[in-house]
Amino acid sequence: MKAEIIAVGTELLLGQIVNTNAQFISQECAAQGIDVYVQTVVGDNQERLLSSLQLAASRADVVICTGGLGPTQDDLTKDTLAAWMGRQLLIHEPSMQAISEMFASRGIHMVESNRRQANMIEGSDPLHNETGLAVGNALTYEGTHFILLPGPPKEMKPMFMNQAIPWLQAHMTDEVPLYSKMLKFAGIGESALEYQLIDLIQDQSDPTLAPYAKEGEVTIRVTTRAHSEMEGERKIASTITKIQKRLGDHLYAEQDVPIETIVLELLGKKGLTLTVAESCSGGLLSDLLTSIPGSSQSFIGGIICYSNALKHKLLGVPMEVLEGAGAPGAVSSETAVILAEQLLVRTGSDFGVSLTGVAGPSPSEGKPVGLVYLGLAQKNAITQVFTLNLSGNRETIKLRAAKRALYELWKQLKEN
Amino acid sequence: MKAEIIAVGTELLLGQIVNTNAQFISQECAAQGIDVYVQTVVGDNQERLLSSLQLAASRADVVICTGGLGPTQDDLTKDTLAAWMGRQLLIHEPSMQAISEMFASRGIHMVESNRRQANMIEGSDPLHNETGLAVGNALTYEGTHFILLPGPPKEMKPMFMNQAIPWLQAHMTDEVPLYSKMLKFAGIGESALEYQLIDLIQDQSDPTLAPYAKEGEVTIRVTTRAHSEMEGERKIASTITKIQKRLGDHLYAEQDVPIETIVLELLGKKGLTLTVAESCSGGLLSDLLTSIPGSSQSFIGGIICYSNALKHKLLGVPMEVLEGAGAPGAVSSETAVILAEQLLVRTGSDFGVSLTGVAGPSPSEGKPVGLVYLGLAQKNAITQVFTLNLSGNRETIKLRAAKRALYELWKQLKEN
Repeated sequence: MKAEIIAVGTELLLGQIVNTNAQFISQECAAQGIDVYVQTVVGDNQERLLSSLQLAASRADVVICTGGLGPTQDDLTKDTLAAWMGRQLLIHEPSMQAISEMFASRGIHMVESNRRQANMIEGSDPLHNETGLAVGNALTYEGTHFILLPGPPKEMKPMFMNQAIPWLQAHMTDEVPLYSKMLKFAGIGESALEYQLIDLIQDQSDPTLAPYAKEGEVTIRVTTRAHSEMEGERKIASTITKIQKRLGDHLYAEQDVPIETIVLELLGKKGLTLTVAESCSGGLLSDLLTSIPGSSQSFIGGIICYSNALKHKLLGVPMEVLEGAGAPGAVSSETAVILAEQLLVRTGSDFGVSLTGVAGPSPSEGKPVGLVYLGLAQKNAITQVFTLNLSGNRETIKLRAAKRALYELWKQLKEN
Repeated sequence: MKAEIIAVGTELLLGQIVNTNAQFISQECAAQGIDVYVQTVVGDNQERLLSSLQLAASRADVVICTGGLGPTQDDLTKDTLAAWMGRQLLIHEPSMQAISEMFASRGIHMVESNRRQANMIEGSDPLHNETGLAVGNALTYEGTHFILLPGPPKEMKPMFMNQAIPWLQAHMTDEVPLYSKMLKFAGIGESALEYQLIDLIQDQSDPTLAPYAKEGEVTIRVTTRAHSEMEGERKIASTITKIQKRLGDHLYAEQDVPIETIVLELLGKKGLTLTVAESCSGGLLSDLLTSIPGSSQSFIGGIICYSNALKHKLLGVPMEVLEGAGAPGAVSSETAVILAEQLLVRTGSDFGVSLTGVAGPSPSEGKPVGLVYLGLAQKNAITQVFTLNLSGNRETIKLRAAKRALYELWKQLKEN
């Protein structure tokens, strides 16, 4: 099945936002065995939108549109398509009711234009909007399927995953669906990982292996075609085993979750608690952990000891360790160890993780950008300290330091 | 001048990377007064690439391509265009020399395909590649200008800014460039802001106003056409004054910077320090602050008091305030005030900001998702507390709470 994606919105053409919707939809289409041939962005202009829709329909089996479903006169996707097809726009009553209730509950007067968000093209199927007001549409016209999704990613993503994909699957007739598994790795870079798997990557035919790196983690998508999960699992089993053998120390999940999810799960299962002392990572490690719902069960908090004064006052690092001629300094294994151990003393947590280093852009204490010490203290165990030499800009170094801390913690939890 | 952007690369269609090139080029075109009408992504396929090039050329004055200039057989942009135009590909000698030297200096044998990166379409002007090997091309064919840029952003950006824009300016005959200013607002939602400016937005002709919201902040781009910065400033002055009068309490910058930058600047100028106590925001506020280089001058640290135990142990909130029948609870103005004030006591900072609330997805202490208390303590001043009712998912509530804290701090700093 050939697909084209059309994103509608002048803000994209002005470069005010980046087209992450096209990326998301492309990824998910690839996972479904739908080949995306073209991505297009057009503005909120009826004539150019129509011309893009017609061109895409002439080439593709499915045209997936995002944007232009909102309440304003700029939101033209349904109107344009309905006019071209010679169909009416009808009100989808359940959506209309949800819109009215939302306005009533907030005590805001609903203006007439908000009714537009409940519009359906005659003969289309509604795609429920879990996180917003505008209802999506799915329909077939002259042999081409059209999927109309809202523009805001938080509305588009659940609608695409939970509504549009099942609709498309029901309309894909003779294709064997793709079955794929995501393997997630931490504590290893993309090139080092590829090097370990180079024979599998080069010889691949079925299953295929697609490695990619993002946000401090590396993912491999292992893909085959299968009619059932069981058949899919069987076809990829020997490849997965080979990868596990070579990279088991880095393979933290066989599903697309960040490592913080797995660390929190392991802590939760064992009834253990975690605190962190963040200097160079500046709160990012805590932020990653607390982004996972339910994290409060195991992550009880931490200290952002950004200045030396707070490393001393809040976590008792002696000033003579931190400053002065010949002192190890704030960026040192000594400081990392004290920070991690004092977390246990002062909070009573089972694990204490510390990060202290140079995030950049300038060196600090005469130490180079990217040098980071990671302390890992655990009740009734010897404290470990790791010296990291990280590359990248300030943001990347913060993220790599935080992810490395999670990786070392995962290794510790996995082994015990 | 009407432009279309074509990004070439199968990795974009597979969703492995996001098309930040299109965003960058669109932004810079807008700044030059070049209107981008369509962005297209096509794969490394000669037939589809040709069809996209021909379509764009039929509609636009300038077609800007990125990608497909590399050494491999997949890199087809110059070949495709040259074949269509019936022109030869010639070697650009200075580029060829740079390529040979690079290989020689690394002691690597240069394979024949690397010569492809020095190719020029007959009759084109070279666009020098400051940061890579593939030379860019600029040419005019049947009245349409073509700009061929490499795909990697670190090569594309300097080539576009330093080579392609001057080339385009020399080929733009009678257009006046755009001049625009970004106004940044905090503590107000997009719709409330639009409501305050609805007359200006609806009546706009020159300058134009484009509001948009992202990541807890609202931006308005005010745009006119002008030959110089001075003329631009003069043409937008009265509009800016009107906006300042109505929304001065929310307008924190007349440039595109996040509010944490301005808060840190004000703290730095006044020689004041800041600490934070984060419960529901879980480290995000610290992460935002420490993402700004130089933040350590004013931001000395904080406490992630995620659990009640740590609110008590590290910041002295009495257990009888936090728990038990009739207690205010962790999510209360009482707790917010104690957290903020204890920051001053325990760290010696000039400002202490606390956030405690329900980030979701489930209610807590019988209190609804989105209810957040923000405490703002300052040396020798009465502590303020704000009750926020935020909407959105867990991530959004964390972000809105953190941005609101920065907004209240900015107001405080601005007034003193």
